[in-house]
Amino acid sequence: MTAPSTPPAGQPESQTAKQQDRRTDGIILPGHRVQLARTEPLHLDCGVELSDFTTAYQTYGTLNADRSNAILVCHALTGDQFAAEPHPITGKNGWWDMMIGPGKTLDTERYFVICANILGGCMGTAGPREINPATGRPWSLDFPVITIGDMVRAQALLLDHLEIEKLFAVTGGSMGGMQVLEWASLFPERVFAAMPIACAVRHSSQNIALHEVGRQAIMADPDWCGGDYLNQGKRPHRGLAVARMAAHISYLSEKAMHRKFGRRLQNRRSVTYGFDADFQVESYLRHQGITFVDRFDANSYLYVTRAMDYFDLAEKHGGVVANAFRDTPVRFCIISFTSDWLFPTEENREIVHALNAVAANVSFAEIESDGGHDSFLLDKPEFRRVLGGFLNGAAQHRGLPT
Amino acid sequence: MTAPSTPPAGQPESQTAKQQDRRTDGIILPGHRVQLARTEPLHLDCGVELSDFTTAYQTYGTLNADRSNAILVCHALTGDQFAAEPHPITGKNGWWDMMIGPGKTLDTERYFVICANILGGCMGTAGPREINPATGRPWSLDFPVITIGDMVRAQALLLDHLEIEKLFAVTGGSMGGMQVLEWASLFPERVFAAMPIACAVRHSSQNIALHEVGRQAIMADPDWCGGDYLNQGKRPHRGLAVARMAAHISYLSEKAMHRKFGRRLQNRRSVTYGFDADFQVESYLRHQGITFVDRFDANSYLYVTRAMDYFDLAEKHGGVVANAFRDTPVRFCIISFTSDWLFPTEENREIVHALNAVAANVSFAEIESDGGHDSFLLDKPEFRRVLGGFLNGAAQHRGLPT
Repeated sequence: MTAPSTPPAGQPESQTAKQQDRRTDGIILPGHRVQLARTEPLHLDCGVELSDFTTAYQTYGTLNADRSNAILVCHALTGDQFAAEPHPITGKNGWWDMMIGPGKTLDTERYFVICANILGGCMGTAGPREINPATGRPWSLDFPVITIGDMVRAQALLLDHLEIEKLFAVTGGSMGGMQVLEWASLFPERVFAAMPIACAVRHSSQNIALHEVGRQAIMADPDWCGGDYLNQGKRPHRGLAVARMAAHISYLSEKAMHRKFGRRLQNRRSVTYGFDADFQVESYLRHQGITFVDRFDANSYLYVTRAMDYFDLAEKHGGVVANAFRDTPVRFCIISFTSDWLFPTEENREIVHALNAVAANVSFAEIESDGGHDSFLLDKPEFRRVLGGFLNGAAQHRGLPT
Repeated sequence: MTAPSTPPAGQPESQTAKQQDRRTDGIILPGHRVQLARTEPLHLDCGVELSDFTTAYQTYGTLNADRSNAILVCHALTGDQFAAEPHPITGKNGWWDMMIGPGKTLDTERYFVICANILGGCMGTAGPREINPATGRPWSLDFPVITIGDMVRAQALLLDHLEIEKLFAVTGGSMGGMQVLEWASLFPERVFAAMPIACAVRHSSQNIALHEVGRQAIMADPDWCGGDYLNQGKRPHRGLAVARMAAHISYLSEKAMHRKFGRRLQNRRSVTYGFDADFQVESYLRHQGITFVDRFDANSYLYVTRAMDYFDLAEKHGGVVANAFRDTPVRFCIISFTSDWLFPTEENREIVHALNAVAANVSFAEIESDGGHDSFLLDKPEFRRVLGGFLNGAAQHRGLPT
């Protein structure tokens, strides 16, 4: 359904990443890998300098001759670079398969779509699961704590490598949206249009609390081994599964859960008066937990949740969010969903207010959906219509052929 | 501040419980204990018959001569019988200290207030932590799975023991409210007035999911030992703490957390780029988890959450909630809180609709509060005014002297 992965035009063959690479856990990942920050280190917010690190990424569509049709898609907490193709581990459709492809909203016959695994992730980009070149062993907790800004600066190095000076657009939901805001704030001259979806200018107290529960669940698992499980041949699967279960509830809405599961029983006619998964919703949650550990790394979960917790655009700009966007040339489209209680419309609207305060070019839409925070991963026609409409308008302004 | 614990009038001395008793973990609990179902077993919903089981309870105020001024207070999931006195383990004020006492809303100079630890609890009433008389060892998972109905039938046996034929009132919040509804449904002739607070006619899909996360956190702890930890000298403290942390978030509201903690740092000027509790909200949550394990039993947590999950008044009455209250003589006062997302006003209103359908005597109030579900534990003047006003009116109708 989607365009085949195309090596970007114009990059030196020697730097084209291997088409597949083996992860520390033996899983072979398809796609592109590239070593970044080879000549100059990346200065991380925590003060550490990171050199010669790997970034794994996928592309869909073809970069045009003047390199002006690139869209960077930023993935969410537990997403990855396999946005529009079957996932190499789960075999499931890419997480934005409904959005990216020929004739779709992010039309790969028109745009060159890039999606990179974030710094700190666990699908090939440098993170706690990858090998620390200095020791030859997995980084584990020796990996520096990263921020959303660090992720974005790493992506900027990837664009340098791909010789893309300016993105036509950058978009993403949830933590992806935070990256979009950071892109527009750090590199306004490199972004034509920005579409942050279901996010906020800062991580709320409640959201930090939810993340902390997940981290504590992981750290409470003795197989976490103080973070050193990779070297000790263990995996904190139980703790990570609990973390995922807790988080998963926050991605849905009460209404969606009621509609999908209600109080229906799981393959039984009456309750068992025990602690098995009597209810469908229990069975579903357990499944979410069990399958998550196959594709995700526990330490990476700690790092990436932490990056979200630390995100606060106001704090970085003298307490005033608008300062992050002063004189911005970027066109914005902000999208929220009615039933999202993790990043409610109210918080998305704060972005709009900040942009209004600096007279930026901004559209805003709240999409009716009972799908909760995960609505941005669902096939919602109104959502596609809003995002597609904005993108078409921006493409015209950018002078991209229709 | 509160009336001293008074042994109820008129009960045979031989049955008056010991004033203190040693729990299986060695902690000495003050208060009343009584053996119930000595001659006839209690038939549990799961089919098991439970004989000669202990109930631990506290009383405040004095039972009047015609035994007509008794108010039963039903506690919530992690509450207990120490409603209006310092807690014997934590030393903190009773959980409804602001509500129960001389001159307070539940005026102990006027009413005789009873609060019993629920069946399946862990503060002296029979439950998984107590000794199974058949084996001389803790029940652990051999304890039968109980329901809200079972809790209420056990409380009815306590009233028999106290020779109280009819309660003036029964009240409680959250799971306490479920017990109130069950009281009015099972024993309408024994209840004059019922005040269920912050509850629902059934446990929602989302709430079952939240409970399941807590149970999985406990069961994931190797020290849970398949439920047998009491016999193996272990305690699943880490799992239980994670369960508590996850649950605690659901007891608050996003607004309350923002007001109380925001993104303020914990005794530091800037983030540490690590996994310590940088934020106050993290420190607070960790504290909630750590202190909870001192006073609560992990298996009891499994049983009591399960009882809530199983609660569904409609399902027990042919799918129609109103059938639970047909021809009821009970006067009801339903109270909800605006920011409660665990038992939102919408779900509380379902109780009102069911009662309206059978032309019951019902008042309803939604109290403005940003305190979330836990609002019923907070000192909210409007809440006290509504509950007190209803209680006064009911007392007049019941002919109680002012």
